[in-house]
Amino acid sequence: MPFYQYFNGEIVPLDQPVYQTNDLGLLRGYGLFDFFRTYNGVPFRWDDYWQRFENSARLLKLPLPVTQGETEKILADLHAMSGEAEVAFRFVLTGGYAPDSVHVVQPNLLIRTEALPQDNPAGRLKGIKVLPYEYVRDLPEVKTTNYVHMVLMADELKRQNAADLLFHKDGEVSELTRSNLFAFQGDKLITSDRNILNGVTRRVVIELAKADFEVEIRPVTYKEVITADEFFTTSTTKWVMPVVQIGDQPVANGAAGQRTLHLQRQFEELVARWGK
Amino acid sequence: MPFYQYFNGEIVPLDQPVYQTNDLGLLRGYGLFDFFRTYNGVPFRWDDYWQRFENSARLLKLPLPVTQGETEKILADLHAMSGEAEVAFRFVLTGGYAPDSVHVVQPNLLIRTEALPQDNPAGRLKGIKVLPYEYVRDLPEVKTTNYVHMVLMADELKRQNAADLLFHKDGEVSELTRSNLFAFQGDKLITSDRNILNGVTRRVVIELAKADFEVEIRPVTYKEVITADEFFTTSTTKWVMPVVQIGDQPVANGAAGQRTLHLQRQFEELVARWGK
Repeated sequence: MPFYQYFNGEIVPLDQPVYQTNDLGLLRGYGLFDFFRTYNGVPFRWDDYWQRFENSARLLKLPLPVTQGETEKILADLHAMSGEAEVAFRFVLTGGYAPDSVHVVQPNLLIRTEALPQDNPAGRLKGIKVLPYEYVRDLPEVKTTNYVHMVLMADELKRQNAADLLFHKDGEVSELTRSNLFAFQGDKLITSDRNILNGVTRRVVIELAKADFEVEIRPVTYKEVITADEFFTTSTTKWVMPVVQIGDQPVANGAAGQRTLHLQRQFEELVARWGK
Repeated sequence: MPFYQYFNGEIVPLDQPVYQTNDLGLLRGYGLFDFFRTYNGVPFRWDDYWQRFENSARLLKLPLPVTQGETEKILADLHAMSGEAEVAFRFVLTGGYAPDSVHVVQPNLLIRTEALPQDNPAGRLKGIKVLPYEYVRDLPEVKTTNYVHMVLMADELKRQNAADLLFHKDGEVSELTRSNLFAFQGDKLITSDRNILNGVTRRVVIELAKADFEVEIRPVTYKEVITADEFFTTSTTKWVMPVVQIGDQPVANGAAGQRTLHLQRQFEELVARWGK
């Protein structure tokens, strides 16, 4: 069944153009987004995603044109119209139409219904390779639409049979292009808290990990990840994904670690029960 | 008369939505642009602007869907349809529609016809105030659509009665948000060549200045601009614009400098003759 999208109060087919071309998101990169999905038909950690979306909007000084309650109704309508059991939603809030191409007048809000993203089941089992990349995201705590380096490097990643970039700068690691990072040193789990987007999956994994491991939330050095016993990344689409190679170097013995797979199973059990 | 825009082979009214919402320019900030205008009905330094546009596209690995010759015909049509003697053109090239929201398949090309921008005639005579801002543009040699800091700071600039931001980092200055910078030390004119976009107006001003001044093209320190005898900025819309105040500090005696105004007159004479 075709998907639909919401744009400034109206629901239209997903392939219908809606933006006039003087939108600040398009002309000036002034936009933010969020992305989440349902499990068992129920949006996962909706309050967390909404709060993050609100936080991004506040930091870019964009007033939200809808309340959380109004948005829930929109999501329910879009979900029902899709005819699918499970869907993903993408929010995009931009600076809106700007007569002078500089000043925000009224933001534009788009909510797209999307098919569930491919979640790389092979990568979850065997682990992925990442390429080290010297970069730190601008305004990292805002989920801006700026993913220029990810798109720019997409072909090079393919060529090197790598799944993602590992951002590092001045000896410190922060994130992958769209996901947070964790490393095990024995039974101690460390995860960066500087120059990162606060991932919702990251938060869930920290909650789960605290039952079985010591968790340290603090800046993480590049050296710590290349010498880690296990290394993994988390996101809405990746869940808990082992990282087994950084450039030419295997992480530990180059296989997905047992502690990582333990957390992955716990996460899978959590989402399997979601909404039930 | 209403303006029109070209999008992927078709010319439609300027306010007509044309992009589907999975364009990488909108969703991932993967886009570049250029902006130029006519004088006496003739696009100013068209070859220079086209070359810069080509260069930006090459650096973002986006194949151009049109040749320079084809584009000239499109510009002529858009200009004629506008019914205006003078127009501005904005090119926007984005990563196009991406089913996976990551990989470029086919770029989208938009060419907007726009009214001539307000060019702040008061600022040209009296000079403008800028606010120092610690930042360096990402991929500075590419005219990407990323102007997040400019939009984010727009209200603060108004509040402080300032016209623009002066980007500096590690003791070096690079640009204003959309324009290049020059400083006079006596009869020596210096302009930055690092972390900048190669402005077409900058190039023209360097050509003009060589007749009367010693021109040094090299990195410029923050200290050099705050201690300069004269300071100015150049762009397609600003022409040669004196900068007379940086934050709370006046530049020299706080008035537009004579050498700057000399170059400004020369630029004005050049564009007044353009195409004749």
